[in-house]
Amino acid sequence: MKIGILGYGNLGRGVECAVKQNDDVELAAVFTRREPSSVKILTEGVPVYNVSEMEAHADEIDVLIICGGSATDLPKQTPEAAKLFNVIDSFDTHANIPAHFAAVDAAAKENGHIALISAGWDPGMFSLNRLYANCILPEGQDYTFWGKGVSQGHSDAIRRIEGVKNAKQYTIPVESALEAVRSGENPELSTRDKHLRECFVVAEEGADLAKIEHEIVTMPNYFADYDTTVHFISEEEFVANHSGIAHGGFVFRTGTTGWNKENKHVVEYSLKLDSNPEFTASVIVAYARAINRLHQEGATGCRTVFDIAPAYLSPLSGEELRAHLL
Amino acid sequence: MKIGILGYGNLGRGVECAVKQNDDVELAAVFTRREPSSVKILTEGVPVYNVSEMEAHADEIDVLIICGGSATDLPKQTPEAAKLFNVIDSFDTHANIPAHFAAVDAAAKENGHIALISAGWDPGMFSLNRLYANCILPEGQDYTFWGKGVSQGHSDAIRRIEGVKNAKQYTIPVESALEAVRSGENPELSTRDKHLRECFVVAEEGADLAKIEHEIVTMPNYFADYDTTVHFISEEEFVANHSGIAHGGFVFRTGTTGWNKENKHVVEYSLKLDSNPEFTASVIVAYARAINRLHQEGATGCRTVFDIAPAYLSPLSGEELRAHLL
Repeated sequence: MKIGILGYGNLGRGVECAVKQNDDVELAAVFTRREPSSVKILTEGVPVYNVSEMEAHADEIDVLIICGGSATDLPKQTPEAAKLFNVIDSFDTHANIPAHFAAVDAAAKENGHIALISAGWDPGMFSLNRLYANCILPEGQDYTFWGKGVSQGHSDAIRRIEGVKNAKQYTIPVESALEAVRSGENPELSTRDKHLRECFVVAEEGADLAKIEHEIVTMPNYFADYDTTVHFISEEEFVANHSGIAHGGFVFRTGTTGWNKENKHVVEYSLKLDSNPEFTASVIVAYARAINRLHQEGATGCRTVFDIAPAYLSPLSGEELRAHLL
Repeated sequence: MKIGILGYGNLGRGVECAVKQNDDVELAAVFTRREPSSVKILTEGVPVYNVSEMEAHADEIDVLIICGGSATDLPKQTPEAAKLFNVIDSFDTHANIPAHFAAVDAAAKENGHIALISAGWDPGMFSLNRLYANCILPEGQDYTFWGKGVSQGHSDAIRRIEGVKNAKQYTIPVESALEAVRSGENPELSTRDKHLRECFVVAEEGADLAKIEHEIVTMPNYFADYDTTVHFISEEEFVANHSGIAHGGFVFRTGTTGWNKENKHVVEYSLKLDSNPEFTASVIVAYARAINRLHQEGATGCRTVFDIAPAYLSPLSGEELRAHLL
């Protein structure tokens, strides 16, 4: 299977690494909005083209993986690219998934291509676990916790405050809330009960630290509803200890069965990821294999992880899967 | 969707309870090898028939759920019943899955029916989690832990010892092994490292307790490779404290990504189940919905959980799933 990458940032590099780990997958080309000669990729012998050259290389690629951002890139890029390629993205603005799905579905169907949107871990593996557990335990309650990991949006919000040079915000699940859910207590949890927010801030010289801290912890929507801790640190410490891209989280469903709902069950799925973009990329590459196969069977139009039978993700045959993994 | 149950033991009763929790599913009939009038079911107004009457009621049932044992019942019952019905079972003898699949597939195809074998949690949800995580992290290691829960086979083995009146054996995952896996250490774990075995035994009056204990802890295959604890208790205590059917377990995959495999990831799925048969039954009913739909689309032959797109398990539409669960 020949893969193309559109957009060579953290996610694009993650896809490149995932391709290396899958023997049946090959990187055919990288497309960038930058001047191609300025983009150095890791894989030897693979060409880098400008996005304007995509159409000329459409025949060389089985699935194009679109590695843009959900806010402005993907709503435009994925339907456009679906005219030329089978495509897959990691669109993660939950509220806009129906509209994005409709746009990509129309473009893909019209041009005889297949597409899959919102691959990754949330949306993606977390969504799958919510779906499976909801189908098994129709009477129950869902809980999703994120972290410990970096929230890009919250880090950006801090950086916009006057006197802030750099900032990183960690979302941290509250341990006692996790334990209460895990025990099957079905707790009612407020926003504040579920997550803590911890901020590491590099201030400009002479900035008013008390004022910055106050602006952070009282910021509506972002921090006011949470218990927030602010640490002021040096530029050196920031670079040394807060450059990571780790993330993760927990999905629970607790439910009851029995004639009188007398039995409790707890289903828990969790991820601890050293690299958020590399894990997301690894999910995407597995789903690229799946849609490539479905396309070979004649399928067109848009899909999500909900629509893909798990066996399609694996390079192994049905016989091998039944013998070794079932 | 109209469901039939073949075999009314713990699992059959679990299916009956699960049907009650799913508005789109209805119980149409229970088939038993016993005298039908001797079988009292929970649902009012639903007929109980002898297995000899199955053929006469084939048209009244969309999916027959076969609730027999894997050792001798299912290898015979499932292919036989697949001639008359769409069928689903929870066949759990891992080593014999390929042969069982082949027999059921042939019978179902020949008669225009669909079948699904090995639904439940292991095989079943645990298998799915192994498959997904293996596809995402091709370079990594799998760990499965069972318990805390009752092992029927090990309890039976103890009961066969001279002087034993009753016995229950709990399989317990070793907490330090779980923690080592969870931390991403990729430990090499022996059989003894992973699980403890705890036995509660009611002895015949005057039996040689030391001899019984010795026979248990040295029993090859069953106990010799484990750290095993034996407690002798009274009949009353046995009935009061050891009649439960709780179970559960953990599936991990730990793997690496990155150009030089520099990033570690831990995927963990766990179940804590008050009732093993009721949870298994709940999984089966969700998959019964899926194969009924696939049959309406014209599909025939045998499937496993690997072959079913998750959306088929849900009573919700694709639009609803994308809007609310993705």
